[in-house]
Amino acid sequence: MRLATQSLNIAGREFKSRLILGTGKFSSPEAMRDALAASGTEMVTVALRRADLTGKGDPFANILEFIDPKKYLLLPNTSGAMNAEEAVRLARLAVAAGLPKWVKLEIHPDPRYLLPDPIETLKAAEILVKEGFTVLPYINADPVLAKRLQEAGTATVMPLGSPIGSNRGLQTRDQLRIIIEQATVPVVVDAGIGAPSHAAEALELGADAVLVNTAIAIASDPNRMAIAFKSAVEAGRAAYEIGLGPQQDAASPTSPLTAFLG
Amino acid sequence: MRLATQSLNIAGREFKSRLILGTGKFSSPEAMRDALAASGTEMVTVALRRADLTGKGDPFANILEFIDPKKYLLLPNTSGAMNAEEAVRLARLAVAAGLPKWVKLEIHPDPRYLLPDPIETLKAAEILVKEGFTVLPYINADPVLAKRLQEAGTATVMPLGSPIGSNRGLQTRDQLRIIIEQATVPVVVDAGIGAPSHAAEALELGADAVLVNTAIAIASDPNRMAIAFKSAVEAGRAAYEIGLGPQQDAASPTSPLTAFLG
Amino acid sequence: MRLATQSLNIAGREFKSRLILGTGKFSSPEAMRDALAASGTEMVTVALRRADLTGKGDPFANILEFIDPKKYLLLPNTSGAMNAEEAVRLARLAVAAGLPKWVKLEIHPDPRYLLPDPIETLKAAEILVKEGFTVLPYINADPVLAKRLQEAGTATVMPLGSPIGSNRGLQTRDQLRIIIEQATVPVVVDAGIGAPSHAAEALELGADAVLVNTAIAIASDPNRMAIAFKSAVEAGRAAYEIGLGPQQDAASPTSPLTAFLG
Amino acid sequence: MRLATQSLNIAGREFKSRLILGTGKFSSPEAMRDALAASGTEMVTVALRRADLTGKGDPFANILEFIDPKKYLLLPNTSGAMNAEEAVRLARLAVAAGLPKWVKLEIHPDPRYLLPDPIETLKAAEILVKEGFTVLPYINADPVLAKRLQEAGTATVMPLGSPIGSNRGLQTRDQLRIIIEQATVPVVVDAGIGAPSHAAEALELGADAVLVNTAIAIASDPNRMAIAFKSAVEAGRAAYEIGLGPQQDAASPTSPLTAFLG
Repeated sequence: MRLATQSLNIAGREFKSRLILGTGKFSSPEAMRDALAASGTEMVTVALRRADLTGKGDPFANILEFIDPKKYLLLPNTSGAMNAEEAVRLARLAVAAGLPKWVKLEIHPDPRYLLPDPIETLKAAEILVKEGFTVLPYINADPVLAKRLQEAGTATVMPLGSPIGSNRGLQTRDQLRIIIEQATVPVVVDAGIGAPSHAAEALELGADAVLVNTAIAIASDPNRMAIAFKSAVEAGRAAYEIGLGPQQDAASPTSPLTAFLG
Repeated sequence: MRLATQSLNIAGREFKSRLILGTGKFSSPEAMRDALAASGTEMVTVALRRADLTGKGDPFANILEFIDPKKYLLLPNTSGAMNAEEAVRLARLAVAAGLPKWVKLEIHPDPRYLLPDPIETLKAAEILVKEGFTVLPYINADPVLAKRLQEAGTATVMPLGSPIGSNRGLQTRDQLRIIIEQATVPVVVDAGIGAPSHAAEALELGADAVLVNTAIAIASDPNRMAIAFKSAVEAGRAAYEIGLGPQQDAASPTSPLTAFLG
Repeated sequence: MRLATQSLNIAGREFKSRLILGTGKFSSPEAMRDALAASGTEMVTVALRRADLTGKGDPFANILEFIDPKKYLLLPNTSGAMNAEEAVRLARLAVAAGLPKWVKLEIHPDPRYLLPDPIETLKAAEILVKEGFTVLPYINADPVLAKRLQEAGTATVMPLGSPIGSNRGLQTRDQLRIIIEQATVPVVVDAGIGAPSHAAEALELGADAVLVNTAIAIASDPNRMAIAFKSAVEAGRAAYEIGLGPQQDAASPTSPLTAFLG
Repeated sequence: MRLATQSLNIAGREFKSRLILGTGKFSSPEAMRDALAASGTEMVTVALRRADLTGKGDPFANILEFIDPKKYLLLPNTSGAMNAEEAVRLARLAVAAGLPKWVKLEIHPDPRYLLPDPIETLKAAEILVKEGFTVLPYINADPVLAKRLQEAGTATVMPLGSPIGSNRGLQTRDQLRIIIEQATVPVVVDAGIGAPSHAAEALELGADAVLVNTAIAIASDPNRMAIAFKSAVEAGRAAYEIGLGPQQDAASPTSPLTAFLG
């Protein structure tokens, strides 16, 4: 029995999978390629610097050879950008190099927690939207910022669950609920998703998708972990579509208690 | 790609599924039968009073006709028992009526929260173990009680995540961790599992299985919800077998940050 | 302005302070004595072995000389007892040595987490109540056990917030709420209280008192930490007596928003 | 015994109290005045529209008559402002009317959750700092925004614990920790503080102060609740200054367990 769920529509493009994968930290491009296939993902984000634009140095420079553009939408990200200007420049370079005009906007001046800069992110988003980019901005779980970005024309908002690579799950639960309640574009929870249960919970709350990287990439068996996340995402989404009961204070008997077996 | 996980062994019997289902609250026996099939479960618990032992009154009295004993281990439960004596009597009646000599021991004198009685549960467990029953006791998340029960010879311990039917998930997380750390018998988290993410989390913590009832039985689409739980349980277990990373305080970059695209 | 709160009545004795202190882990008996005075406590628990009953060996053996029985009710505890028999014997020895006929019943066979044994605790409580002891049992946060103990005649129930010395605060919040709702005797939260905010929260939930030891005893300035806990306990209790508002999902403006300054 | 704590310095002005009070929602100006006195606060925030600048209509228009400027620093706030322009205009009007050149910057376009706008807040802060205002901005718990504001010259940052009036306490705990770790100006937790334990926890985490309004203003006994918050703030701060132990996984015995009473 298959667990089909509604498809996800971002900027007019349809995705059957609600799991987006990052490509950092894998032990090899081959390991990455296999995990992508196992995960069922249809959208894969790549740090622009890693992509084979310059052809120099990085052993992962040829990473694009391992991501079949017919199977996956390649989503360049601006990781490493410290401000709007750098992010915009990166996005333009990607297009010039033949990559899709989609961009995951990541601007994090802080090297310790890699938290996104709200001001620079909005500024870059406004520029890139005007230039015709499909913009998916990574943000703190800030409902007002999320609203402003969607008003500026971004294709999604991507609030964080907890800091990148922290594995702490949905520490921003309360704010995520508000973002989801108010969103008119898909909400993708990005960062901090360290376990399948975190991914399932995000979908159960009504998030439209999750982005996972570290937890799969550094697992001792990335393929199998990719499948675990795939299953959890489908489970969480299905539960959301069916509808989950509210939390109760008191118990509600599952077995009849009034009478008693003679 | 299938997400095979290690099988579960309870009292020498092997189970491929780590999802145990309850049979209360379904809208009809047919709905229950279909959800059992969809869930992939191999163990199903039935309140003894509902089973067709007396043949009287209850529209669900023929519930056993809907549970194929070749596909499922039928696990009679003593729900409704207020003390050890009543529970023991129920278990014996079940055997006398031809049911398996397995029993889910549930003794909850409190009608509001249906929380289990530790004293009566240990007393009944000692008696039933001596009589050759395979005993699976439902308990509060009490690590010392769990130890005493396993020393008394129970086949599992079944600590609660939160009160029955409350949908509050693993509110007893800290105690569950200790129980799992110290257990020499399988730990089954029972009660409070209201969403697939809760089930996944229990397995990720190292619980051996979960028991779910309300969340599936009262769902608008029990079949699909059963599959969602099945997927979540497999995802959580696979993640546990592979190994999950620890939670970090600081972020750990997934994309390289040192250099910058020229 | 003083923050007077209702007094606490345990077994017919009135206490103005709702903070009970333990005496372990202080750097010296003098440090302990001063912290007790600073805390405003009126009840102090002492491990029987440490009390000067045998007069041998332990540098703390003369601990009782530092606790003025006119200022504090001395509450002998049975810490170190592995079962009911040992606990009962300890309690009797204490009385024989002239200590009050009050006992904090602590039975924890497990050396790692020091969690209490529900079965032995109830057994010992029944015996000691019959012998005329005022019994204050330390228990897991188990609502059914709490009820059974109060039915057996204990003067309080003392559920844990989290394991002894863990500083994890009220990890058993949900169960504590149920215990408090159902209790007919005072509920004292014992163990795990590692910060003033934990103590305040326990009182806000409706707990009648808290027992604190480690957090004060090992502080770099035990006296000042004792005052901090005193303040927090009074604050939490006062808030409970006044009544706290429920948690809301949406914001509720504190400043008028409709009009605007011309 | 008094619980003296280090004084707080904001923009060169010293405050003995770390509790800042809001003035909305009180049942009368007299009730407000008495609660301010009871709380020990030295800084009081007033929505500009309420202050007697226009002298028209609002029964609270004379609120300033009830706040003695010799006892309290009056902190005008821009509540009701939808964008930077409105907020700046309000701040200037306040100064023109003779109020202090301090401003609590609040810009929340969203009427439901009253969450602050990061973009407009930074914009207004930059303008007001240049005009010589002492600026205390209310923000989401966004560490990067907090850094940018302090770089822009604000006197504090005031991240929210949870939405205004929600009583949900520190739902943004993880982000608050990062803000506190990185701050070079005082951090004041503002909004969501619904109980003394929440206030104590904020101070224990290292926040420099808290702002409380609803929980005191709508209490059945605002005076006494004000004292409860005062006590909790002092307790939390003292604990922070003394130093709290880390949370442990395992128990750490407070009573000696090795030997046993004869």
